[in-house]
Parts: sequence; structure tokens; C-alpha cells
Amino acid sequence: MSTATDTIRNGVDTEKMFATLDLIKAQPELAKFQFRATNRWIDGAHNRSTIQGFYAAGGEDTTRGEAFQIDAGEPAILLGTDTGPNPAEYLLHALAACLTTSIVYVAAARKVELTSVESTLTGDMDVRGALGVDDEPRNGFERIGVSFSVSGNAPEEKLREVVERAKKRSAVFDMVTNGVPVAVDVTTD
Amino acid sequence: MSTATDTIRNGVDTEKMFATLDLIKAQPELAKFQFRATNRWIDGAHNRSTIQGFYAAGGEDTTRGEAFQIDAGEPAILLGTDTGPNPAEYLLHALAACLTTSIVYVAAARKVELTSVESTLTGDMDVRGALGVDDEPRNGFERIGVSFSVSGNAPEEKLREVVERAKKRSAVFDMVTNGVPVAVDVTTD
Repeated sequence: MSTATDTIRNGVDTEKMFATLDLIKAQPELAKFQFRATNRWIDGAHNRSTIQGFYAAGGEDTTRGEAFQIDAGEPAILLGTDTGPNPAEYLLHALAACLTTSIVYVAAARKVELTSVESTLTGDMDVRGALGVDDEPRNGFERIGVSFSVSGNAPEEKLREVVERAKKRSAVFDMVTNGVPVAVDVTTD
Repeated sequence: MSTATDTIRNGVDTEKMFATLDLIKAQPELAKFQFRATNRWIDGAHNRSTIQGFYAAGGEDTTRGEAFQIDAGEPAILLGTDTGPNPAEYLLHALAACLTTSIVYVAAARKVELTSVESTLTGDMDVRGALGVDDEPRNGFERIGVSFSVSGNAPEEKLREVVERAKKRSAVFDMVTNGVPVAVDVTTD
């Protein structure tokens, strides 16, 4: 096998990964990132976010040639026309995606070759909260369940360690379990 | 104007909305919903969620003929190939979408006709946390900023009240600001 091939594991360039970690250790100011989304209401429960630029490693990242556009909606029972997943479903997707990528990166760093990572997420909600019918149920999910099925060339114990480490490092798992301060300002015209 | 037209405001059928609220008040057990996502790792930072069925109002909702498929990724600087927005960006989208739909629904209920709702969200992150370089910065965003621009046929004070009420009722705003218990289980094979 060539050296170039050896550095790629689980689709992650581990040489580049370790170089990135070394660089950030040496220059912690490069670790300051800012991600962004802009959103525009279209009609009813239909709105669209545009995601492109972000600040990373000391400057504005302009490597994305095109913006991502993602549409949200609600199903008929929640008064929409199903123009996209609803916002709570997008939160489940964000959590699934972040835990999965964390598992894949941690495994790459620990020389574990994965063959599959699948997950099912459920979020239980009493919609009386969000609909304003009753103050007692919270607006969001009361609980979220995540079931992972992970396969790879490592003993079960090692695969479980990889998932545990991924939970400890996932950005979205941190935010969803611990919360984040959110400041909202409004202009009208 | 016809009565049928009068019931639609901001793209929301207000007659159906008030009927839904009355029904849930009378039968609170109908308010139990469960949303779901399944996710599959593809390669590197690329993974895909599939979102279709959900439990609502006493039974499984099967009105979605096709599943939504949404792809996540990471930009090159975070070792991906930009196969989609990253998970933290999806969380910003979920928050924007939920606040926006809440604003639109609250406005519809309060007889405010909106002409535009736009928002810009920013999330500041020190990536040393998520990359495991340093234990001090948290993994997720330290803070999220949301700037709304709202226009409609109501005085500024009323538009601001609509946004305030939407914050108090948004499912994703609740989850992101207060956190949710998340249980993760793992099977390996």
C-alpha cells in the first residue's frame, strides 16, 4: 500500500487531521469559528435557509462556490403543506449527523476502520406546549432517544469506546443536552 | 371577500388552526407526537438522514408519500468535502425555521398579515472543544445570535409582541436554550 492511501481512513485524511490538531494546539486563536444561516419566510410553514460563508482559522472561508438552500415545512396535521422536514425533525437530523461524524473522526484517529454507522432518532413531544394550549408541557421534545448500530474492524468494546468519545466531543450533542444562550433581536419596517 | 379566503392568513388556515386547538384542549391525549429521523453514514463527514413517518394525534401519520432525504457534510477545513451543511449549521437552520414558523402562526392567530420575515443567525464556536484539543472550550456554540427583520400590517409594538410570543412557544428555541435529555444506546455487529 502507498503512504498516500494509508493516511485515508473512513474517508478522513488522518495526516491532515493530525496536522490540523497540531496547528490549533500551537495557535489556539485559529480555533475561533463562526457558522451562519440566513432564513426567509416563503408562505405558511414554508421557509428556506441559505448557508454558505463562515469564519474559520483567522479569516472568512470562501471555499464554498455555491450556497446550500434548505427548506422547512410542516405536515398537514400541523397546518403546513409538507414543503420540507419540520424544524424539530431538522434538530434530530443535526444531532444524528454530528454524532455520526464524531464517531467517524474518532474512529479514524484511533485506527478503527468502520463498515457501517446507522442510527434511528426519536423525539417525543406533547404539542400542547408549542401550540400554546397548556403551559405545563414544555414546547420542545421531552426526551430524545438515539439508537446506533456500528460495525467495523475492532472488538465491541473498542467500538463502544469510540461512540462514548464521540458523545463527549460532539458539538450538537453538547448543545442539545446542555443548551446554548440565544440572543434574539428584532427590527421592524 | 369570501369566507373561505378570510380563513387563510399568512398561508395558514386559521379556521383549521382554531379547530385543532379546540380539539386538543378537549382531548389532550391527541397532543402526543413523536418525530423521527434515521441516519446512515456514507463516507467521511458525509451522512444522510431520512425523514418520513411520525406519530401524531393518536396514530401513525402516513400522509407523506415520499421521504425527505437530507445530506450533511463538513467543509475542507474541517476535513470534509462539502457534501452538505454541517451539523451545527443544521441546528441554526432548525432554530431559524422554528422561530419563523412560530412568528407566522402567532401572527395568523392575532390577525396580523405579515409581508416578510427574514433572519440571520450566527453561532460562535471555539473548535478546540469538539476537536478534543482542549477541555476548556465547550464543544458547541458558546452563543447564538438571531437577528429578525419583520414586516406586516401592524404597528411595531404588535410585531414585537408577536416575536416575543413566538419565542415563548417555539419548540426548537426551547430545546436549544434549555437542553433536552438524550439517551444513546449502541449495538455493534
